[in-house]
Amino acid sequence: MKKNNHLLAALRQQNPLIHCISNIVVANFQANGLLALGASPIMADAMEEVAEIAAVADATVLNMGTLNPTTLEAMIHAGKSATERNIPVVIDPVGVGATTFRKQSIQQLLQEVDVTLIRCNAGELAAIAGVDWTAKGVDAGVGDADIESIAKAVAKKHNCLLAVSGEIDIVTDGYQTFYIEGGHPLMTKVTGTGCLLSSVVGAFLAAAEENSVEAAATALTFYKKAGEKAAALAVGPGDFAVHFLNALNEEEPTH
Amino acid sequence: MKKNNHLLAALRQQNPLIHCISNIVVANFQANGLLALGASPIMADAMEEVAEIAAVADATVLNMGTLNPTTLEAMIHAGKSATERNIPVVIDPVGVGATTFRKQSIQQLLQEVDVTLIRCNAGELAAIAGVDWTAKGVDAGVGDADIESIAKAVAKKHNCLLAVSGEIDIVTDGYQTFYIEGGHPLMTKVTGTGCLLSSVVGAFLAAAEENSVEAAATALTFYKKAGEKAAALAVGPGDFAVHFLNALNEEEPTH
Amino acid sequence: MKKNNHLLAALRQQNPLIHCISNIVVANFQANGLLALGASPIMADAMEEVAEIAAVADATVLNMGTLNPTTLEAMIHAGKSATERNIPVVIDPVGVGATTFRKQSIQQLLQEVDVTLIRCNAGELAAIAGVDWTAKGVDAGVGDADIESIAKAVAKKHNCLLAVSGEIDIVTDGYQTFYIEGGHPLMTKVTGTGCLLSSVVGAFLAAAEENSVEAAATALTFYKKAGEKAAALAVGPGDFAVHFLNALNEEEPTH
Repeated sequence: MKKNNHLLAALRQQNPLIHCISNIVVANFQANGLLALGASPIMADAMEEVAEIAAVADATVLNMGTLNPTTLEAMIHAGKSATERNIPVVIDPVGVGATTFRKQSIQQLLQEVDVTLIRCNAGELAAIAGVDWTAKGVDAGVGDADIESIAKAVAKKHNCLLAVSGEIDIVTDGYQTFYIEGGHPLMTKVTGTGCLLSSVVGAFLAAAEENSVEAAATALTFYKKAGEKAAALAVGPGDFAVHFLNALNEEEPTH
Repeated sequence: MKKNNHLLAALRQQNPLIHCISNIVVANFQANGLLALGASPIMADAMEEVAEIAAVADATVLNMGTLNPTTLEAMIHAGKSATERNIPVVIDPVGVGATTFRKQSIQQLLQEVDVTLIRCNAGELAAIAGVDWTAKGVDAGVGDADIESIAKAVAKKHNCLLAVSGEIDIVTDGYQTFYIEGGHPLMTKVTGTGCLLSSVVGAFLAAAEENSVEAAATALTFYKKAGEKAAALAVGPGDFAVHFLNALNEEEPTH
Repeated sequence: MKKNNHLLAALRQQNPLIHCISNIVVANFQANGLLALGASPIMADAMEEVAEIAAVADATVLNMGTLNPTTLEAMIHAGKSATERNIPVVIDPVGVGATTFRKQSIQQLLQEVDVTLIRCNAGELAAIAGVDWTAKGVDAGVGDADIESIAKAVAKKHNCLLAVSGEIDIVTDGYQTFYIEGGHPLMTKVTGTGCLLSSVVGAFLAAAEENSVEAAATALTFYKKAGEKAAALAVGPGDFAVHFLNALNEEEPTH
């Protein structure tokens, strides 16, 4: 826990600039979550400026929700700019199994950008790996040994970290794996909690000295705890979202 | 009321996938409202994937706020894909009387897509019907016999359902008409309550066995009641929106 | 204070239509803030309709967050349409110093559109003026005499009002300057508070008889007070945003 607090304190000290290529559904929640956490969001997706912004940001987060070809091109451009400068790049392959366009786009992104971490759910992981998976199976599959195997294989193939959200989160570099329990079902009743998590992981990687499984695990643990705190105060999904932003902003006990 | 509960229970059992072509103002509220209700939102507007998504969704909702020619083309594409498979298509002609572009766009949409239901307010209805109407008259005209006549005529002309929001909602198939009282003025002080309603109606149609006036009326009644519950707890428009999402998520009494 | 109340009462009486060319991050908060205030927002950015909407609106607010060349063209088009009819145009040069594209875009906007008021922070002001300024210096520079000098120079050069947000707001026409104290640090922990302020200033200018420094100062004062009221009730940034919308909606004491 001490380490967890150290990294959060470092993040808040640094106030990292997080460049997000986001979407019309979650951009506001993502920006507010990053501000609450102690990071500084900048949303920009025009080809004319993404490389310049990615170059000065402390992390770049590419979110594939409401994707279109123009944004995909901007993501590749921003991703390359970031990795040239060893700035962490997080990819959130939102609903990547839903359409042929998204499946092709994620493969193109992974081929052209040297990704630091992929943050997804089990269904999205299966789509990236090309594994057959029914939507129902995805929800039920949390904690299954197969998810860990697939995550490890994808991590090794793309030489990156994999953070798979679920009832129990998994984070792995292909060799070492952490399991993070906790959180609350209300987190799945607010749109963008996954997208915001990807940005939060980006902020923790920005604050960490290296792109380690531990740093990602610290972010996931912090996020699940914030969800628990908010759920304890919430009547429903409406006020949960409000309490959750407060929880991301809370001081951690230093002991 | 029993019927109302049956349909809501069926909706939550089914957890229908609602494909929304939305806009930058309301996409977040729309997605959160659908999640709270018990539906599953998917926002997608790229030509590369809208037909594929509309084909697997349980309803498609086309929202004309912040419209542009690219989105209009995507709406037509998605709408055709849905109607080919007998999937309900709801159109929300946001501010359709405001500009020539919007007036032309709604006519093109109605000509090319076999729409299931149009959800609008009195002013938007007048614009669709080509009736002269002053903005002031629109607000005052709620409950007026003319609105019912115009709604019936538009429903017959386009062979669809018409749901006209106001102090008293009207829903008609051109022959049978329901009036729904209730709701609260705070509903007009939060952006996107109309847009979200269109999605909610889509979710109820998805859960119903047929695209009936009754199913639409059930959705409108449920929505007005959620507004009343939220208003009873709210200080102003800020917390009303929060309580409203909670109210959409509430268990209905089964009696 | 009496004057303040007069203008707010006039605004709510008029219910001005505020045309916003906005962005995916803040459009929802901006629309909800304007509704809470007593204005009527309309978001539209398609070239096909911006001139028509700007022509009937009571103010046009151009926001450069997540800018792209298409939106920039629409802003120029809308801005020209508004100024031809003596409708106030407010520009919010979000993060204008961040990239070459934004720096060039603001110069093009200021050259082609007869702007009524620029609402920015100290860093954005420095970027517009071409003054060297480090990000750190920006935050620290509030209240500095240089900011006032630069604001006055920019106001004179572009023959417009300058409203510079900070711990103490400055508003000037190049000759007369008002300083507005108050507000709360939580206002900087919610995304879009600056963008919404630009729209609120637009609504106050729409309600005022002339585009005066006093009208802008009244808007800034009202906004800081709303921030104070909300902060007094808030636990963190999540519920601050909720209370802030409520505060914008509150009746002012008439005495």
